[in-house]
Amino acid sequence: MYTRTVRLQDTDAAGVVYFTSALDICHEAFEDSLMGSGVDIRTFFSNPDTATPIIHADIDFLKPSFCGDQLTLQLSTHQLAEDEFEVRYNITAVNKGERLIAKATIRHVCINPINRQRQPLPAELVTWIQRWSLAMS
Amino acid sequence: MYTRTVRLQDTDAAGVVYFTSALDICHEAFEDSLMGSGVDIRTFFSNPDTATPIIHADIDFLKPSFCGDQLTLQLSTHQLAEDEFEVRYNITAVNKGERLIAKATIRHVCINPINRQRQPLPAELVTWIQRWSLAMS
Amino acid sequence: MYTRTVRLQDTDAAGVVYFTSALDICHEAFEDSLMGSGVDIRTFFSNPDTATPIIHADIDFLKPSFCGDQLTLQLSTHQLAEDEFEVRYNITAVNKGERLIAKATIRHVCINPINRQRQPLPAELVTWIQRWSLAMS
Amino acid sequence: MYTRTVRLQDTDAAGVVYFTSALDICHEAFEDSLMGSGVDIRTFFSNPDTATPIIHADIDFLKPSFCGDQLTLQLSTHQLAEDEFEVRYNITAVNKGERLIAKATIRHVCINPINRQRQPLPAELVTWIQRWSLAMS
Repeated sequence: MYTRTVRLQDTDAAGVVYFTSALDICHEAFEDSLMGSGVDIRTFFSNPDTATPIIHADIDFLKPSFCGDQLTLQLSTHQLAEDEFEVRYNITAVNKGERLIAKATIRHVCINPINRQRQPLPAELVTWIQRWSLAMS
Repeated sequence: MYTRTVRLQDTDAAGVVYFTSALDICHEAFEDSLMGSGVDIRTFFSNPDTATPIIHADIDFLKPSFCGDQLTLQLSTHQLAEDEFEVRYNITAVNKGERLIAKATIRHVCINPINRQRQPLPAELVTWIQRWSLAMS
Repeated sequence: MYTRTVRLQDTDAAGVVYFTSALDICHEAFEDSLMGSGVDIRTFFSNPDTATPIIHADIDFLKPSFCGDQLTLQLSTHQLAEDEFEVRYNITAVNKGERLIAKATIRHVCINPINRQRQPLPAELVTWIQRWSLAMS
Repeated sequence: MYTRTVRLQDTDAAGVVYFTSALDICHEAFEDSLMGSGVDIRTFFSNPDTATPIIHADIDFLKPSFCGDQLTLQLSTHQLAEDEFEVRYNITAVNKGERLIAKATIRHVCINPINRQRQPLPAELVTWIQRWSLAMS
């Protein structure tokens, strides 16, 4: 579980959280969860042998969110193939009775960053996926 | 049609465009298209009577994009109800033989920003939607 | 004191923290400190009677910072006039022996957001400034 | 000269341009100017032999700026040493009678990105600096 306060910069002149900021916060929760499983994210995201670019992202907004809101993100993982996985995110506002604010899905593939061909997920990622695969079931 | 060079800030330490930056660029194309139809975007996005928050966004990435790429965005509009519309975006890289980089959809509803109840789309928006509704058909 | 992990999105294709991300993180520390003193930041940043726009910001970088770094920010406040104050920030990397990464200063004025004329700082802000005015001395 | 419309994402819930967005726009003008002199910015910003990280940035805001404003940036360059240069930026709003909105300075050093030791500026950068060194004088 990842908690995050909505910052002024997450908002726009319409007064609410800008739509891509919500997806940014999902990726923060992904990085936070990897770190919590002992993954060195500096190495992970600039590894010359393995990259996990995003091939799909979607988000549905149920309620608006404002500067100062205390958000909580829960994630669940799903391995879709030996070279592909997705992470689903539920974003709730703690200061609004745990109301669900948004739901998002981000799908990644594993590639060799030099030739950009698909390859199996590295072991540390498979371990992490298994750990969180039942999280929201 | 909106053209945009990929900037250093759009990229991350993995060397490619960060996934939410691609959605940010779609929204830039939306704003640019509104301005091209004579909409005053300062008033449009902070109008006390009408707001058009995003309820859904999705994006699929077909090819990676890098700093300096010359992107072109084409959009097509679809009115889904009297209070709802979506915009579809095709992002191509001019410097890569017009190759399709990503496809995105962003869906908006029209609300009263005070009570946040749905209301019909304003006339200037309906005009804009009709103008671009066949753009990519 | 505010702690913050460097995220993938804070970095760019050169592999280090993008320069404006460091200033963004300073503003996060400002918001966090205000909240810690009981200020409701949603109201504070969209108050129709009082706004505190930034008139100056500067930052000096001493060491590079990378994805995954654990940053700590210490701030000290300085009231410069009845309608003006500045906040100084020291950013250190906990995972690098508390090494100083950057130093920044952000100066704000207090205005009426309607006519944009200067006016004295509100009481809750003066209290907060006094509380942190000796923090790094 | 670089022109840029203020986007919704550049603004925050206070309704004006977020302070770091103005510095982001300065860096866009820097990248645009380099491209205009034939520099390949993808190679330039991820060159394994040469990097030009920012060691200092400052900005002063004279007037607020809002969503939809048409900004124009003029830059002038100053080589400070064989391994150091700065760029000064004047930001004006075309739609407000060319009024000066902000002034910024960004200082870069040239280093070897592997050992992070200083080294002389590359020839293409020296040529670019000379070309723009009298621009605003």
